[in-house]
Amino acid sequence: MLETLPFTLSALRDAYATGTTPEEVVAECYRRIDAVNDPALFIHLRDQDDVLIDARTLGVPADNKPLWGIPYVIKDNIDVKGLPTTAACPAFTRVAPADAFVVARLRAAGALLVGKTNLDQFATGLVGTRSPYGIPRNAVDPKLVPGGSSSGSAVAVAQGIVAFSLGTDTAGSGRVPAALNNIVGLKPTIGLLSASGMVPACRTLDTISIFAQTVGDAYEILRHTAAYDPDDAYSRKGPVANLSHASSNLKIGIPDSKSIQFFGDQIQAASFQNAVDHLSAQGVTIVPLDFTDLYDIAEMLYEGAWVAERYSVIEPYLAQSPDAVLPVTRSIVAKAEELNAVDAFRGFYRLQDLRRKAETVLSGIDLLCVPTIPTFYTLEDLAADPVGPNSRLGTYTNFVNLIDMCGIAVPTTARSDGRPGSVTLLAPAFQDGLAASVARLFEATDLEAQPSHAGVEGIVQHGEFALAVCGAHMSGLPLNWQLTSLKGRFLRKAKTAASYDFYALAGGPPERPGLVRCANGSGSEIEIEIWALPIEKVGQFLINIPAPLAIGTVILSTGETVHGFVCEAIGAQNATNISDHGSWRHYLETA
Amino acid sequence: MLETLPFTLSALRDAYATGTTPEEVVAECYRRIDAVNDPALFIHLRDQDDVLIDARTLGVPADNKPLWGIPYVIKDNIDVKGLPTTAACPAFTRVAPADAFVVARLRAAGALLVGKTNLDQFATGLVGTRSPYGIPRNAVDPKLVPGGSSSGSAVAVAQGIVAFSLGTDTAGSGRVPAALNNIVGLKPTIGLLSASGMVPACRTLDTISIFAQTVGDAYEILRHTAAYDPDDAYSRKGPVANLSHASSNLKIGIPDSKSIQFFGDQIQAASFQNAVDHLSAQGVTIVPLDFTDLYDIAEMLYEGAWVAERYSVIEPYLAQSPDAVLPVTRSIVAKAEELNAVDAFRGFYRLQDLRRKAETVLSGIDLLCVPTIPTFYTLEDLAADPVGPNSRLGTYTNFVNLIDMCGIAVPTTARSDGRPGSVTLLAPAFQDGLAASVARLFEATDLEAQPSHAGVEGIVQHGEFALAVCGAHMSGLPLNWQLTSLKGRFLRKAKTAASYDFYALAGGPPERPGLVRCANGSGSEIEIEIWALPIEKVGQFLINIPAPLAIGTVILSTGETVHGFVCEAIGAQNATNISDHGSWRHYLETA
Repeated sequence: MLETLPFTLSALRDAYATGTTPEEVVAECYRRIDAVNDPALFIHLRDQDDVLIDARTLGVPADNKPLWGIPYVIKDNIDVKGLPTTAACPAFTRVAPADAFVVARLRAAGALLVGKTNLDQFATGLVGTRSPYGIPRNAVDPKLVPGGSSSGSAVAVAQGIVAFSLGTDTAGSGRVPAALNNIVGLKPTIGLLSASGMVPACRTLDTISIFAQTVGDAYEILRHTAAYDPDDAYSRKGPVANLSHASSNLKIGIPDSKSIQFFGDQIQAASFQNAVDHLSAQGVTIVPLDFTDLYDIAEMLYEGAWVAERYSVIEPYLAQSPDAVLPVTRSIVAKAEELNAVDAFRGFYRLQDLRRKAETVLSGIDLLCVPTIPTFYTLEDLAADPVGPNSRLGTYTNFVNLIDMCGIAVPTTARSDGRPGSVTLLAPAFQDGLAASVARLFEATDLEAQPSHAGVEGIVQHGEFALAVCGAHMSGLPLNWQLTSLKGRFLRKAKTAASYDFYALAGGPPERPGLVRCANGSGSEIEIEIWALPIEKVGQFLINIPAPLAIGTVILSTGETVHGFVCEAIGAQNATNISDHGSWRHYLETA
Repeated sequence: MLETLPFTLSALRDAYATGTTPEEVVAECYRRIDAVNDPALFIHLRDQDDVLIDARTLGVPADNKPLWGIPYVIKDNIDVKGLPTTAACPAFTRVAPADAFVVARLRAAGALLVGKTNLDQFATGLVGTRSPYGIPRNAVDPKLVPGGSSSGSAVAVAQGIVAFSLGTDTAGSGRVPAALNNIVGLKPTIGLLSASGMVPACRTLDTISIFAQTVGDAYEILRHTAAYDPDDAYSRKGPVANLSHASSNLKIGIPDSKSIQFFGDQIQAASFQNAVDHLSAQGVTIVPLDFTDLYDIAEMLYEGAWVAERYSVIEPYLAQSPDAVLPVTRSIVAKAEELNAVDAFRGFYRLQDLRRKAETVLSGIDLLCVPTIPTFYTLEDLAADPVGPNSRLGTYTNFVNLIDMCGIAVPTTARSDGRPGSVTLLAPAFQDGLAASVARLFEATDLEAQPSHAGVEGIVQHGEFALAVCGAHMSGLPLNWQLTSLKGRFLRKAKTAASYDFYALAGGPPERPGLVRCANGSGSEIEIEIWALPIEKVGQFLINIPAPLAIGTVILSTGETVHGFVCEAIGAQNATNISDHGSWRHYLETA
């Protein structure tokens, strides 16, 4: 039974709820590691007995351990107290004096660390082959490169060994291997996850990333790990909104036919077109964009000043012995030796100019949807050319951190040749929830299977303002755009307490109703909708609300209260009492 | 008569209103230039006849030329179409093909450019003595350095030659010469004024700055020139709020007794203490802070990577001929030759760490008040040591742009030895209006003389939400803090239309009133206050408003409407009708 259990959060929780123990899950995890039998997957696999001790000391499932008994692995450029961190460079190896900030949070949440995974040395590479610890085997097709630099972390999730894993992502290392192994790869907004205890690649552009089987799982891990860290100077405070149902009002940019690049892979082109058609079918607006400026930005990552950031990390080991660093890694970072501080600033000026151009390209767009990778490369391809395929794999990932976007790679329908399909949804910084919400559109069956999501999502989040609407602002009605254009999101339907009179007010179009609270003991229940508005947008919303309407307090049938539309009593003059209809929709249908 | 006219905006406008012509003002301007007789003030003085032609072609005073006939000068590192720009380096000289963005705005506003002023070469220096075009004469005391790098622009205003001038400010060049010449120096938030057409010093840290006789004049020039410029990659969109009466709730940080530096100048120490006492007397809270972290940041400007920005500008001229650049300037920027790109990034990392520390120091503080300069230096001091005094003059200015603050230097009461007193108010980015509003506390007599300000300031600005309050939220009443803590500002008193019933609601404390609109023809006028809230704060405000109160629309006695507090009719139950009192204050006084 346990042998066939998918290691997703919900399946593991269901198993725990029906009597499975964390020790059994740990044992199954190590059984799978044995079965997969990939000697290059881990740089440091923890002793099973040590993990079992962790499992036994978890205590009972409790609210304050939201990841109770969930097994995971991390890339070996992230610190775990008492374990060696190698960054895939033996000369670098040091035993970590403390957990990385994010690992400490996972430990506190009850997640069980199984081991530390292989990577492209110093997280420099998108292929997953640049490691003295061997090449992890691609989970889909052993002939393919596993993708990097977070190769082992991606493969471990794709093989079902653990429920999630941590990678890192500077140039695409959290997305490219997700595409190559048919899993989800979430690259958060830079700074949302603390980098304390992570070996930097480019410190100004790095982030820890998350691999999982589903968008929901990856996003839940983000929510448990994201927190401001005063000890990481690049940590940023930002919202991690709840996932929501993606609105059909979204405008999603894609590379236009002139600038899209597949390097001759027509099957990948068709796969991407299918994915775009799928989005289109959900009602979103697809906007083809010229990606030239974004490609120009991408080039700066390895051609511009930023290789000096990598060099600053590797310099001490190069100084010890050039052989301590792989020749291909050395050749990449060595470019920094020719760059002076003036070159660095000229690089920033150029990037700033390009960012300005990119702003123009992206203005009016809510998200981008891009192929995660333009095509596939085999180990054979890499042996023939260790640099070209690596560069090309970054076509749609390299520019992202340089312009402070967040993104999530999500599997799409398999390609016609059976290889995995993948697109990445990219959104402006701190719109991680928006990107993930749209990514879920590619997991339609999951959504159908999880109707309870709507309930979880019905809760207003920190930074949001819950607003009861009872008329033209409801879903599908003429003024609903006033909510959605301010990034309002639907929470749930509800009813007022049975203490209101409901009026069709004079004036319009659009016609509007008014909710007037009655004297004790009289009045009707009225159907309403509760929406969440970003709290900083409430003023903009309110400015368009005319008399006799006002935002006050609405009493719900449950006795709870919520801010929402009420009506001055004067509005009842010359108005029609429509309380018997019980809802504005019903009134509109019958009027 | 014209010979004694102070060249302030209000005095010039009064003169124009009573028949003075722009030609007369231009003639007077050139008379003053002759009288001042400072051959080092201008690098390029325009021919008087050319300025007279500009004056004659201004047309009639009109709303769309808010600076109609106002004479000004600019620092000679800012472009004017058809005039040479030298940056005080003859080898650099080139005739500008177009107006700088800011100059174009001033031209369109009707301001009259008189000439281009002397500066420390390439805006590198705070002394005003590093120019092959001579040393402008300090307007207060010829023995003192004029201050730099915007030396000529400061002296021209201080001598009363023009109403305002443009400088630039990277390390303090827009503030230090203001202190040395007893005028106002406004250093806006970086990016608020476009740098298009300005010769950069450190492109990531530069801003154009404004000198004037009064805070109000300097701030008005900012409002006319600030605009987003898509052609300047470092231009930023931001609010330029109206000036307001500084609230007594402010917390103002000052250097504590251990970290304050006057380099032995006890008179300057006493002068600063007087200024702090003056602020204290206005009711603000003074918070002594350890400035060590800010000084550490300051040091990075010339010791860290940023000299490479200066080098990148000067490099071509150094390459032509080392003698093209002054030896002192050369020696400063030459440090860049030893810095590689890795050093640059290590500088950024260190700055980011220090910024984080500074955030901690500044948390909970609304503004800083610092001495603009720690002490005075004479030309003789400079001749003896060309570098030390220059560094020390930047004690309280060097760190400011590196942590993205804005500031304004304002004269205070003269020191006991007659030298000018000056403090600088520093605020976070985009709080230019706050800094200027507090700076005006040092111009009390001006304020007294301008009671009409209250009217001008009674207007709601873009980005604000006007809100009518009728009860405990009014000035001085128990819930007023809910407005002021969200940066609400008082606009004006008003009355409702004579169509409201006014109730003292049940419940409390605090007691609250409710405003209920009556049927046509009945009701009373009720006294209210109109406040402005930042529109993004409205939600936070609303979240604390309980039933039966709501934010709806209030009709004023003038027939205008404004959003504000209304009350659900249900609230009138168990409430006392207090309409006859006509105001909540009157009710409280008599109840």
